[in-house]
Amino acid sequence: MQVRFHKMHGLGNDFVVIDARAAPVEITERRARALADRKTGVGCDQLILLERSDIADARMRIFNADGGEVEACGNATRCVVSLLGGTATIESLGGMLEGTSIGDQVSVDLGEPRFEWDAIPLAYAMDTRAMPVGWEELESPAAVNVGNPHVIFFVPETDAVPLDRLGPLIETDPLFPARINVNVASVDDRGNIRLRVWERGVGLTDACGTGACATAVAAIRAGLVDSPVTVTLPGGPLTIDWAPGRPIRMTGPATHVFTAETDLSRFG
Amino acid sequence: MQVRFHKMHGLGNDFVVIDARAAPVEITERRARALADRKTGVGCDQLILLERSDIADARMRIFNADGGEVEACGNATRCVVSLLGGTATIESLGGMLEGTSIGDQVSVDLGEPRFEWDAIPLAYAMDTRAMPVGWEELESPAAVNVGNPHVIFFVPETDAVPLDRLGPLIETDPLFPARINVNVASVDDRGNIRLRVWERGVGLTDACGTGACATAVAAIRAGLVDSPVTVTLPGGPLTIDWAPGRPIRMTGPATHVFTAETDLSRFG
Repeated sequence: MQVRFHKMHGLGNDFVVIDARAAPVEITERRARALADRKTGVGCDQLILLERSDIADARMRIFNADGGEVEACGNATRCVVSLLGGTATIESLGGMLEGTSIGDQVSVDLGEPRFEWDAIPLAYAMDTRAMPVGWEELESPAAVNVGNPHVIFFVPETDAVPLDRLGPLIETDPLFPARINVNVASVDDRGNIRLRVWERGVGLTDACGTGACATAVAAIRAGLVDSPVTVTLPGGPLTIDWAPGRPIRMTGPATHVFTAETDLSRFG
Repeated sequence: MQVRFHKMHGLGNDFVVIDARAAPVEITERRARALADRKTGVGCDQLILLERSDIADARMRIFNADGGEVEACGNATRCVVSLLGGTATIESLGGMLEGTSIGDQVSVDLGEPRFEWDAIPLAYAMDTRAMPVGWEELESPAAVNVGNPHVIFFVPETDAVPLDRLGPLIETDPLFPARINVNVASVDDRGNIRLRVWERGVGLTDACGTGACATAVAAIRAGLVDSPVTVTLPGGPLTIDWAPGRPIRMTGPATHVFTAETDLSRFG
């Protein structure tokens, strides 16, 4: 089966986007893994499938390179909005999203964050502003669900944290029944945060859009910064705008690299 | 400038192939690096540029991911023959090549190997059957030029050699004024060789086609194996056919992954 696809990236977080709105495309775990392979496939961090939606311009499904389906990806959402053009609504496992593209900058509304312990989800009731738990030097994280689950540790210096070692430990802690994305953030001033993220099911990444949103929300909620705040990831900066009771708005780049065609049956 | 390109691989050694036979395409070092980037570009081990030739069906130029141009790549040659279809002649910096594709298997004539010390090239005259030199446990290599320069060490067990440490040491030894590809090979029986390769300017790779050719030629020349010989690389097997005074013939797979279009001006 011949399909057309796009290769895109947001701050170096790269995607294969298959537009299956006109004709359905089946993505199995095996096929997602084969497409994501950087040597023998197309190569990407996540595979994005655009399907028809009855309630939005498109339905977005997101598959990690390991083949598993996930709820939300901020960078992918910007790329999809850019592809749909103008202002677009997107149905996703993480909720309804809306965005607008102007040139290569895209603003996306990611819905309202959730703070209730069972919405994160956590295994036990606790205050998600500063949870009374810790893993070695990382203590008292905030927790936010922005379509997917995040914990955020505010530290003096993000680069000093051995996130490659502590990330997988925290991600798989029984406290988090759906596992968790691990954010380590330093507040530089009231408008700037630096951030490193251990992504659930992926590992250390250069640019986690939902991590930037969750971290900005936690920092605004804690009174550490003012909205809008610039969150600088290793891959580059994103601007996050949020106030209590409002949806999160994330602004950043979406880059189109190429358009291609392939025979999908080659990928299992 | 809008260009069409192909993504292909031979045993997992992957290529972006730009067909510039109809309209010239300029590849700078910066542009080659940007195209080869696996996150923000297309992603490949080597970029292949097909140009018009007055003496062959096409002229093939090969750029490593670091932007440097190289003479020869056996896996790329198979992919180009497969793309040109049927029987094709190819002009390259490493000499004239000819190949035939049947299904996804491609046989390529890589010209005659050269054994003279100044054709490898070496810095001093010495016998290239067994050079009186050594680097730690690696001693008495053979040297062959098959369009690009190779040394071959026959060892009892390829996996026991710390090639990641010794490869760069040997590659940059002053004995090799054009640097060198480093092959570590074990002869299993008279028809089978296992091979690992440290590629000049690249590092450890899963499938070096010219390394397989150079190693098979050195083993046939030393009377260790009979032609044709199967050389099994980490990425898979290649069959090499050679006799003194004849061109080397390599047979192996060439896989087409997708066809794409992009605006080349995005890549610098």
